[in-house]
Amino acid sequence: MTNWLITGCSELLTLRGDVPRRGQALGELGVIPDGALLIRSDRIAAVGPRRKIERLREARRAEKLDLHGRVVLPGFVDSHTHLVFPESRAAEYEQRICGATYQQIARAGGGIRSTVKLLRRASPESLKLRALAHLREFAAYGTTTVEAKSGYGLEWAGELKTLDLLQELHQDQPLDVVSTFLGAHVVPHEYRRRPDAYVDLLVRAWIPAVATAGLAEFCDVYCDRGAFTVEQSRRILRAGRACGLVPRIHAAQLARTGAARLAIELQAASADHLEKINRGDIRALAASNVVCTMLPGCCFHLGLSHYAPARRLIDAGAIVAVATDFNPGTSPTLSMPMILSLACTQMRMTPAEAISAATINPAYSLRVHDRAGSLEVGKYADLAAFDVAGYREIPYYFGMNVCSLTMKRGAIIHTKTL
Amino acid sequence: MTNWLITGCSELLTLRGDVPRRGQALGELGVIPDGALLIRSDRIAAVGPRRKIERLREARRAEKLDLHGRVVLPGFVDSHTHLVFPESRAAEYEQRICGATYQQIARAGGGIRSTVKLLRRASPESLKLRALAHLREFAAYGTTTVEAKSGYGLEWAGELKTLDLLQELHQDQPLDVVSTFLGAHVVPHEYRRRPDAYVDLLVRAWIPAVATAGLAEFCDVYCDRGAFTVEQSRRILRAGRACGLVPRIHAAQLARTGAARLAIELQAASADHLEKINRGDIRALAASNVVCTMLPGCCFHLGLSHYAPARRLIDAGAIVAVATDFNPGTSPTLSMPMILSLACTQMRMTPAEAISAATINPAYSLRVHDRAGSLEVGKYADLAAFDVAGYREIPYYFGMNVCSLTMKRGAIIHTKTL
Repeated sequence: MTNWLITGCSELLTLRGDVPRRGQALGELGVIPDGALLIRSDRIAAVGPRRKIERLREARRAEKLDLHGRVVLPGFVDSHTHLVFPESRAAEYEQRICGATYQQIARAGGGIRSTVKLLRRASPESLKLRALAHLREFAAYGTTTVEAKSGYGLEWAGELKTLDLLQELHQDQPLDVVSTFLGAHVVPHEYRRRPDAYVDLLVRAWIPAVATAGLAEFCDVYCDRGAFTVEQSRRILRAGRACGLVPRIHAAQLARTGAARLAIELQAASADHLEKINRGDIRALAASNVVCTMLPGCCFHLGLSHYAPARRLIDAGAIVAVATDFNPGTSPTLSMPMILSLACTQMRMTPAEAISAATINPAYSLRVHDRAGSLEVGKYADLAAFDVAGYREIPYYFGMNVCSLTMKRGAIIHTKTL
Repeated sequence: MTNWLITGCSELLTLRGDVPRRGQALGELGVIPDGALLIRSDRIAAVGPRRKIERLREARRAEKLDLHGRVVLPGFVDSHTHLVFPESRAAEYEQRICGATYQQIARAGGGIRSTVKLLRRASPESLKLRALAHLREFAAYGTTTVEAKSGYGLEWAGELKTLDLLQELHQDQPLDVVSTFLGAHVVPHEYRRRPDAYVDLLVRAWIPAVATAGLAEFCDVYCDRGAFTVEQSRRILRAGRACGLVPRIHAAQLARTGAARLAIELQAASADHLEKINRGDIRALAASNVVCTMLPGCCFHLGLSHYAPARRLIDAGAIVAVATDFNPGTSPTLSMPMILSLACTQMRMTPAEAISAATINPAYSLRVHDRAGSLEVGKYADLAAFDVAGYREIPYYFGMNVCSLTMKRGAIIHTKTL
């Protein structure tokens, strides 16, 4: 592997410091003007002002990479995606624009059930090809670690197919893929009249099987109106935790059913969505170590004007992350810069807060903060360079890709020339 | 120049038909499955189903370009941009997120006045380098014709510098640049106590000078609260029209001052913004040939939830276009696909309507519909190919660049490989 001396960083954002970042502390980007990095194989060996790093003996022998004034960040950590799915749902998108409700779309054979149906039939090879293409795109927008959930199988074969594929993807391409079991995405059609029997199945059979085979690190549940109740979710996440799967929760997207409080009770790594939480929930989350993961792509794509209260969570001192929620039904984007734009323009996060929320904080929520999420000695050389005059321009320019280079564990995995 | 046989278009959208498209007729995309194009030098020689085009004698001798199943559209026509400016206003973006009002930002030296100040000082070379980079980016998102306005000079030297540069840009790079004189962008600081004296200057000196020198095809005015009154705008646009400059209007972005009606009265090519129009304005615009140009990037970037009534304009039978409004203060994007996403998710336009609104309708508003905006025999070979399964996915995937090839007048000016 190559050793690199990276220079020409007009701004180098280290994100160095205490993990996780809470509230006001989110501003600590650790900006080094005219910064440099020394990479030894897949890790960061030194980071600091160029003049200092260049003087190191090891720097002289390293391969030189001059970024000509670009802004350099830790690679983005995308802590909530549904990476593996069979095809887009663009037809349904048009139906919704024309006024169809989710219920009407579901009755017409659309919605998540259509994805489940297709995924069950899809060959692992076709799913893999699509997921590999998506992962290359993630890298092209500066992302170097991706969490990915199962949950479009909802039968053992389909869930296993997805989780096996996630393991393969982690091995076969450069990005780190962190695996989450989401058997409790929705109640499968076959169990619609006896959801508790499905919960039994999850708790007694699938969760232990997933954990034993080492197929996931996290267990997630969609705890919301029309999905799983708080009581069902508690059973599922406790069963997961008993086998070593750390809890995550889809919470309060559609209604306030108590999922946010459950996340705190179970010391979940992350509570995601949170569009419908109230003031008391905000206070309780701020007092916890649960990472509050905002998924603004969802609100945007569905044309909703109400976003999760990111501003109030940050002001209260909560740990806030942002993620793409990449999925075919409600958030078809894998661009973290687009999510940063939404975080700033729609949720009033500052650019600095948004960048912390896309790097070190989600790294903490995925429990990879010992190796990713910041540019510090000993961590992976995971970074992205942006063609902008300052870091604020990353969310400022919207709907565009200003990422011009991505490095994963010391290997250049994306470059863009214009 | 090369002759091309282009095949492998899973969907070829011709946009063929009557110009302009009104209301319900917007759905007429002219989709050819497995379509092909024969390009002779810079023009389209034939277009239709692959089997038919391949059989043409000329096709056999042409250079082959297989697009491997991509979706092909006419190149986008971006009919409203402020292409030439000295630098971003990302610092101001952060101030606004933190709660500063436009007035506070202006008092602190920000806002349009800061751009004017910098542009007056900027060298033509530095402005040109930046504009060339922007035009390459426009091409990377599928745009092949760009309207561009002056209006950051607000003194003769600065306006002239911008308009001269636009002529140069039109010559020196592949995209067509259509030039609009916007001396009436805001009342310059020097004239703040005597705006009518500035209007006199525009009407008597600058407009005739611009027209005589052939430096613009259109004359635009910002007719709104805090800018120019309807009476002032009428004088300016009439003076322009008397010299052969076709009127365009920035209308009803901030307040309903009567600008939309003025556009109709003066048979303007386009009325842009229209966020604040009422039901009567919609009816009147629908009965006119004024193109109603929606600029949703502006509302998005400013974090506003109220967008222009595109849906009601279309339903009433108006001619609707969308444009980026690329500028450093309120819409820092040059991605037309992003604007299509905003048009669909935020303004409830269908993907088909949005595509018409980004091709043939703005071509009509720029009076280039005889050569651009659709894929028809005799028109320029201006096209863009997208890496999607169907045209609906172009707005559906948001914040991403799915444009993989752009051709301008028969020359490939952008390719993306992943």
